[in-house]
Amino acid sequence: MEELLEQLIDECKIYTKDGELANYIPELTKADPNMLGVYMISSDGKQYSAGDCMHQFTIQSIAKTILLLQALLDKGIEEISSKVGVEATGKPFDAINVSGQKLASKNLNPMVNMGAILMCTLIDGDTYDEKFERVLALTRELAGNPDIQIDEDVYQSEKKYGSKNRALAYLLKSYGMLEDDVEEVLDCYFKSCSISVTCKDLANIGFVLANRGQMPGRKERVIPVKYTRYVNAILMTCGMYDGSGEFALRVGVPAKSGVGGGIMAAVPTKMGIGIYSPTLDEKGNSVAGIRLLERISNQLYLSIF
Amino acid sequence: MEELLEQLIDECKIYTKDGELANYIPELTKADPNMLGVYMISSDGKQYSAGDCMHQFTIQSIAKTILLLQALLDKGIEEISSKVGVEATGKPFDAINVSGQKLASKNLNPMVNMGAILMCTLIDGDTYDEKFERVLALTRELAGNPDIQIDEDVYQSEKKYGSKNRALAYLLKSYGMLEDDVEEVLDCYFKSCSISVTCKDLANIGFVLANRGQMPGRKERVIPVKYTRYVNAILMTCGMYDGSGEFALRVGVPAKSGVGGGIMAAVPTKMGIGIYSPTLDEKGNSVAGIRLLERISNQLYLSIF
Amino acid sequence: MEELLEQLIDECKIYTKDGELANYIPELTKADPNMLGVYMISSDGKQYSAGDCMHQFTIQSIAKTILLLQALLDKGIEEISSKVGVEATGKPFDAINVSGQKLASKNLNPMVNMGAILMCTLIDGDTYDEKFERVLALTRELAGNPDIQIDEDVYQSEKKYGSKNRALAYLLKSYGMLEDDVEEVLDCYFKSCSISVTCKDLANIGFVLANRGQMPGRKERVIPVKYTRYVNAILMTCGMYDGSGEFALRVGVPAKSGVGGGIMAAVPTKMGIGIYSPTLDEKGNSVAGIRLLERISNQLYLSIF
Amino acid sequence: MEELLEQLIDECKIYTKDGELANYIPELTKADPNMLGVYMISSDGKQYSAGDCMHQFTIQSIAKTILLLQALLDKGIEEISSKVGVEATGKPFDAINVSGQKLASKNLNPMVNMGAILMCTLIDGDTYDEKFERVLALTRELAGNPDIQIDEDVYQSEKKYGSKNRALAYLLKSYGMLEDDVEEVLDCYFKSCSISVTCKDLANIGFVLANRGQMPGRKERVIPVKYTRYVNAILMTCGMYDGSGEFALRVGVPAKSGVGGGIMAAVPTKMGIGIYSPTLDEKGNSVAGIRLLERISNQLYLSIF
Repeated sequence: MEELLEQLIDECKIYTKDGELANYIPELTKADPNMLGVYMISSDGKQYSAGDCMHQFTIQSIAKTILLLQALLDKGIEEISSKVGVEATGKPFDAINVSGQKLASKNLNPMVNMGAILMCTLIDGDTYDEKFERVLALTRELAGNPDIQIDEDVYQSEKKYGSKNRALAYLLKSYGMLEDDVEEVLDCYFKSCSISVTCKDLANIGFVLANRGQMPGRKERVIPVKYTRYVNAILMTCGMYDGSGEFALRVGVPAKSGVGGGIMAAVPTKMGIGIYSPTLDEKGNSVAGIRLLERISNQLYLSIF
Repeated sequence: MEELLEQLIDECKIYTKDGELANYIPELTKADPNMLGVYMISSDGKQYSAGDCMHQFTIQSIAKTILLLQALLDKGIEEISSKVGVEATGKPFDAINVSGQKLASKNLNPMVNMGAILMCTLIDGDTYDEKFERVLALTRELAGNPDIQIDEDVYQSEKKYGSKNRALAYLLKSYGMLEDDVEEVLDCYFKSCSISVTCKDLANIGFVLANRGQMPGRKERVIPVKYTRYVNAILMTCGMYDGSGEFALRVGVPAKSGVGGGIMAAVPTKMGIGIYSPTLDEKGNSVAGIRLLERISNQLYLSIF
Repeated sequence: MEELLEQLIDECKIYTKDGELANYIPELTKADPNMLGVYMISSDGKQYSAGDCMHQFTIQSIAKTILLLQALLDKGIEEISSKVGVEATGKPFDAINVSGQKLASKNLNPMVNMGAILMCTLIDGDTYDEKFERVLALTRELAGNPDIQIDEDVYQSEKKYGSKNRALAYLLKSYGMLEDDVEEVLDCYFKSCSISVTCKDLANIGFVLANRGQMPGRKERVIPVKYTRYVNAILMTCGMYDGSGEFALRVGVPAKSGVGGGIMAAVPTKMGIGIYSPTLDEKGNSVAGIRLLERISNQLYLSIF
Repeated sequence: MEELLEQLIDECKIYTKDGELANYIPELTKADPNMLGVYMISSDGKQYSAGDCMHQFTIQSIAKTILLLQALLDKGIEEISSKVGVEATGKPFDAINVSGQKLASKNLNPMVNMGAILMCTLIDGDTYDEKFERVLALTRELAGNPDIQIDEDVYQSEKKYGSKNRALAYLLKSYGMLEDDVEEVLDCYFKSCSISVTCKDLANIGFVLANRGQMPGRKERVIPVKYTRYVNAILMTCGMYDGSGEFALRVGVPAKSGVGGGIMAAVPTKMGIGIYSPTLDEKGNSVAGIRLLERISNQLYLSIF
C-alpha cells in the first residue's frame, strides 16, 4: 500500500505547480509550494503514509467541521438546524448569503464562513476563550494528539487581515443573529482556523467520522452516530466549497478542505484520510491534494456511489 | 418486510395533508392527494411493495436522470462536462442560472431545468422525435417495462403551459448554447417529463443505478459504472432541488424527485426504491414520500454516511 | 449656430472610433461607423443641423418612448403605473428583472426591454397589427413626418435573432403578466424598434416632449402635459440604460438612446435634439453621440441642474 | 404664499399616520410622529415657512450631500469619479453593492451608504476628527447657521447600533477600497449623520445647490457651478433611494431625504426647500414630507420636466 501511495504522490506532484498559495493573509504565502503528503488509517486500524505527511500546517476551514461537531454536541441537532441551513449555496466560501436585503437562517451553512462564525456562538462556554478551549480539546481528542496547538503567527495574521470575516460577522449582528461582541466571536473563529495539524491528525479525525464516532482501536463512541451522519452528509454536499459537486463525481467521499492546503476525508466504514499540499485552485481547494485523493479513491474503490 | 412497509405507510399517510398538488399545469391537479405507495427491489433480487405502488403517474423531473444518462451514453463524460456543470446552484428547479448578464456552462446543472433542456440537444438522433424515442426506449429498458408510454394529456398540458421553460430555452439560445428550434427541443423535453410510470418502474431504474449498471437478476451492465457513479453523485448533491442538503442529512441516499409526486432512490450496492405521493412541499418534493423514505432509511440503515 | 455645430462635429468625429457597431443582429453591422449628425429645433421654431443629419437609421430603443406615450394616452397614468415601475434597475437594457424567483411589476421599467414589451400589450387595438399601426401613426405625428416607415430588413433580422426578447416575453407570460400570444406581442415590439428615422425626426419628437406636448409652430398640445412630464422624468433617470446617472452629470437633459445609434433629447422649455452616430459603448449608447451632446449642452447651457 | 403652505400642511398632516418612525436606532423612535414643517427660500431671497419648521432633527442621509460636496471641493471630480460611480443601484440605502464576489468602484454610489462612507476617507484632514470638523463647518456655512451641532444622543446611538454600517465598511476594507481604521472612518460618518438641523437650515443648503453655488443675498459662489451640477444630477437620479424614479415623476426636482424625517430640495434657479416629518415609508423617505413637496411642486410649477 505505501508503495502505491508513494507512486501516486510521484504522479501527482506535478499538479502542485497548477495552483497558487493562499494569499489573503501574508502568513500563508510562506508555505513550501512543492509539498504533498498523505496519511491513511483504515478501519482495521492499519496506518499508511507517504510524502510530507508529518508537516505541520493550519487547519483553516477544516475547523468548520470541528466547530459544527462541538456545537452539535453542546446544543443538539434541533437547535443547530434552527440556526443554520444545510443547502449548498452555490457560492464561494466567503459568500455574502444575503438575498436581496434579507438574511435567513436557512441561507447560512456551517461549511461557509458566515455559518461557521455563527457556530462559535453556539458552543458552550462562559467566555470565547473557554469556547475555543473546548474546540481545541475536541480537536486533540479526535486527532488523538494532545500536543496540538494553534500557530500563533497565522492567528495574528488572520486577526489583522480579517476584514471580510469582520464584515460577515457584523452582517450577522445587524440581522440580530449574533448577539455577542464581534471581535470576541471572531477571536474564537480565527484561533480555530489557526490550529496547527498534520496529515496524521486529519486522518484520525476523518477516521472517527468514517467509523460512526469510534476512535482507532477503541470501542466507545466519542461522537454519537447521529452527529457523524449529520456532518458527513454536509461534507458530501458542501465540504469542498463550490467544488463539492465536481468532487462528488471524481472522488465520491465526504471531505473538507482548508486554504492551508489540507484535506480531511471520511470514507464511511472504510477509512480516514489526511492530505496536504498547499497550492490551491481558484475555489480554494488543494490542486494536487484533490488529484491524489481522486487516484486513491479510484485505486481503492472508495467512492460511495 | 412488507409488514414494515405497510406500517410505515400508515404512519406517513398523515403527511400527505401537509403538501399541495402541483398546480403549474392543470393536469397535475387531478391527482388523488391521499395516495402513498412504495416499491423496493433489493440487490439480491427480492421485491417488496406496499400502498399505491402500481398507480401510474408522470415521471416529471425524474426524467432528468434518464436524459443525463442517455446524453452520457451518446456523448461521454468529457463532452457533457463541457456543456453543464455539476455544482448545486442553491436555487429552485426552474432557476434562471444567469449571474449578472452572463450565462456560463458551469452554472447549468443537468438536474435543473435549463441544464436538462440542454441534455435533449446532446442526445443522438436526427430529429427530436428520434431523440425522444431513444429516451423512451432507455426508460423502458431500465424499468424492465416495455409498456411504458407518455401520458398524452399531461404532455399537451405541459406544452400549453410551458412558458417558463420556453423562457429558459430561449435564454439558452440567446447565449448561443442551443442551436436548434426551441419548440422542437422543448417537445422532446415535455414528452420526457410526461412519461407515465409506477413505483415499480422507478424501483427498477433505481436498482440499475444502485448496482453499477446491472439489471435485477442479470449479469451484464446496461450502463457503464462510470456513468452510474456520475449520475449517483449528482443525485446526491442536486437530486432533490434546493432540498438536497436536508435530504442528505435525513435520508442519505442518491435520489431524484419529480413534481408528479414520484421519488426514485438508488441505495448503492443495496437496492432501488420507487415512491409515490403527489402532494408536494414548497420546493417541489413529495412531502409524505420523503417522510416515508426517511423512515425506511432509518429502519434499514440505508444512509451511506 | 450651425457653424458651432459643424465645429463640434469635427471635434467629436474622432470618438466614432471608440465604439462598436451593434452586432446582436446582423443587419445593424451594415451601418457606416464614421457617421455623426445632429438636428436641433429650438422652442422659437428655429432649426439647426450639421453632419449626417438626414441619414436614415432604425429607432430601436427610442421606440420605448413612443410605446410608453401611446400606452399612457390609451390607458392613463394610473393603469400604467400599476403594470410597471419607474425605478432605475441598475441593470442593462435586456436585464432579467427577476429577483430570486419573484417578478414584481414594480421591478419592470418601460425603458428596459421587459417593461417595453409589456407596453405593447397595453396599447389599444384589436390586433397587434392595429396596435403597431397606432404606434407608427403616433411616431409620424410627433415627428411631423407622414413618410416614416419600418426598415423591413432590420425588422426581419430582429424577428429572426430575437431569442433574448422571446425569453423575456415568455418570462412575463410565465408570471401571468402577459396574456396574449408571445410572437404577436413581439411582432409589434420588433416592428416598433425597426421604425426608420432621421435626426430631424428625433428632434421633432424631442421638441414635443420638451414643450409640454406642443408641436413646432403650433399651439394645441398633441400630448397632455402630465404625460410629457411623466416621460421626461423617466428619461432622466432611466433613458440611457445603466449610463443614465453619468449622462445626467455630463449632459443633464432627458434623453433616450437606441442601439441603432440614435439619441433623442428633450431639453425642457428649450429644444428638441436628434443625434446619430452608430458606434456604441458597452452599455449600448452612441459614443460620439453622447460626446457631441455633452459639448452642445455645455456650450448652450442646457443642463437642467 | 404662507397661507398656501399652511393649507397644504393641513391637507398633508393626515399622511403622517401612514408611515413609521425609523427604528433601526432607538434614539430616532423618540420623535413626535405628528410633526410636519416646511421652509422655502426663493431665489429672490424671500423666505416662507409653515408648521414645525424650526424643530430640530438629525440630518441623517442628507449628510451624504455634504460629504460628497466636501470630497468634491477637496479632491475634484476626476478623483471622486474614479472612486465611486453615479448610477442608480436599484437597491435600498444600505445595499450591499457586491455583484457575485466582486466589488467595483462603479457600483458604489455616494448617495448609498457604502459610497458615502468612502467619501469620508476622501475629505482632507489629518485625522477623522479634522475631517468631520470640515464637514460640520461646510454644513454651517451652507446653512448660514454657525450654531449647528451634532445631536450627541443620536450620535452615540448610531455608534452603538451601527452593525450594518460596520459590515459595509469592513467590506470596503476587504476589497482594498478603504485603508484607514474602520471605527475612525465610521466615527466621522456617524457624526455627520447626527448633525442637528431645522427645515430652515435645509432650505438654505438647497438654495445654494439651486443657485449654482450662491448664498441667499450674496454674489460670490461658495461652491463652484461644476460641483452643484454634479450634486444636483446625482440627487435627481439617486437622492430618494430606490424611490428616486417615482419622486422624479411626482415632484420633479433634485432632493435628498434622511431617515431623521428631513427632505432637502434644490429647485434649479428657483428655490431651496427644507421639509420635516419623521414618519417614513418602507424606503426610508418621509411620507407626509413627499406628499407636501409634491403639492408644493404642483402648485408652484416646480418640476423641471
